[in-house]
Amino acid sequence: MTTRIVELRRGILKKNDELAAGLRASYAAAGVLVLNLVSSPGTGKTAFLERTLKELKAKGLRVAALVGDLETDNDARRLASSGAPVRQINTHGICHLDAEMIGRHLDGWEGVKLEGLDYLFIENVGNLVCPSSYDLGEKIRVALLSVTEGEDKPLKYPTLFNSADAAVITKMDIAEACSFDRELALRNINEIRPGIRIFETSAKTGAGMEEWLVYLAAERALRSGTPDFK
Amino acid sequence: MTTRIVELRRGILKKNDELAAGLRASYAAAGVLVLNLVSSPGTGKTAFLERTLKELKAKGLRVAALVGDLETDNDARRLASSGAPVRQINTHGICHLDAEMIGRHLDGWEGVKLEGLDYLFIENVGNLVCPSSYDLGEKIRVALLSVTEGEDKPLKYPTLFNSADAAVITKMDIAEACSFDRELALRNINEIRPGIRIFETSAKTGAGMEEWLVYLAAERALRSGTPDFK
Repeated sequence: MTTRIVELRRGILKKNDELAAGLRASYAAAGVLVLNLVSSPGTGKTAFLERTLKELKAKGLRVAALVGDLETDNDARRLASSGAPVRQINTHGICHLDAEMIGRHLDGWEGVKLEGLDYLFIENVGNLVCPSSYDLGEKIRVALLSVTEGEDKPLKYPTLFNSADAAVITKMDIAEACSFDRELALRNINEIRPGIRIFETSAKTGAGMEEWLVYLAAERALRSGTPDFK
Repeated sequence: MTTRIVELRRGILKKNDELAAGLRASYAAAGVLVLNLVSSPGTGKTAFLERTLKELKAKGLRVAALVGDLETDNDARRLASSGAPVRQINTHGICHLDAEMIGRHLDGWEGVKLEGLDYLFIENVGNLVCPSSYDLGEKIRVALLSVTEGEDKPLKYPTLFNSADAAVITKMDIAEACSFDRELALRNINEIRPGIRIFETSAKTGAGMEEWLVYLAAERALRSGTPDFK
């Protein structure tokens, strides 16, 4: 029984990896930088993304977002206030997004073409475990962690941080109220993923956002050869 | 392929349900009240449980805890400071506890017998999705939600709240700093699970703990016919 489950799981992941490779090629052909945001429920992915979308739009960049949740379109409605095109993916009980869901929702997205975008953000289902195993073809996987969650999350969920390209600490505005131990959090993230870029942000006050936007622009420039903004 | 996965999943859950039924019978025979604590990572399950263990011990009750995490024994070490027996279950990549893991760790637990306990707490892996599907034979499933997480969690993760017997709101001490909308949170929990008992707590200040302990005593009295304390 265990062997069969493992084999089946490998089969599912292999199929996902193939679909993700196809997505990665289409993102590259379209010249769009794709990011996959992963965190626990309640870390503040949506608030962080909402601010990111607004600030990029204000710089004249073309942005869009796909947002995964088990149920409801609350997050899509919140993000739509940024003015960017946003599409909700309801997984109905599945605890992660997979490449097939992304492909299907990109295909049928009225008015949105990858070629017309500079950045596509994918907000994953709130879950620190399963999303780590599902490649969505993204260029940058972002692990988010809030100051309220406990500084040892990277040690307890190593797969997520180990597979991430950047880490974002959210809700820095309430760090003091939560007795957040910044040094310990940074040390734990670095222990799992040495040298990873870490952004200390607050969607409420805007702290750390400029540094994050400069990083996004640099990553896009690495690909396209031309900077978005300075 | 899809059909086979669904059948396999049903098979796994059926096997888990059978093991859970066996656990439930052994908890009842031993006269121990078993609770399964489920929440997102970072909600503060460990802090809440640590305080619960200490306060129950102070009342002369016999308590123990099993604690699930993917990796590390940080939580078990924190909980052990309560003086109660605590055993860590490392799931190594599995995003939930299952009945087999519980049975195995109860069997081999040196110095701890179910018959010698009044309460056994199981702290599940931090995850709002998968633990809902795995019965651990518990009498009471507790869904925890912190004031930092967003008031719409019950709507976005209905299965957890729908299958819970009690709800605990944690970190009430920072509710104001987080602009927590209490009325909205209570309404959303009640929408998914009408009439559920809701405790508004802070492990830091002790707010709401006495009401929670009275509830535990009443639940145990319902079973044993004699109250623990008044």
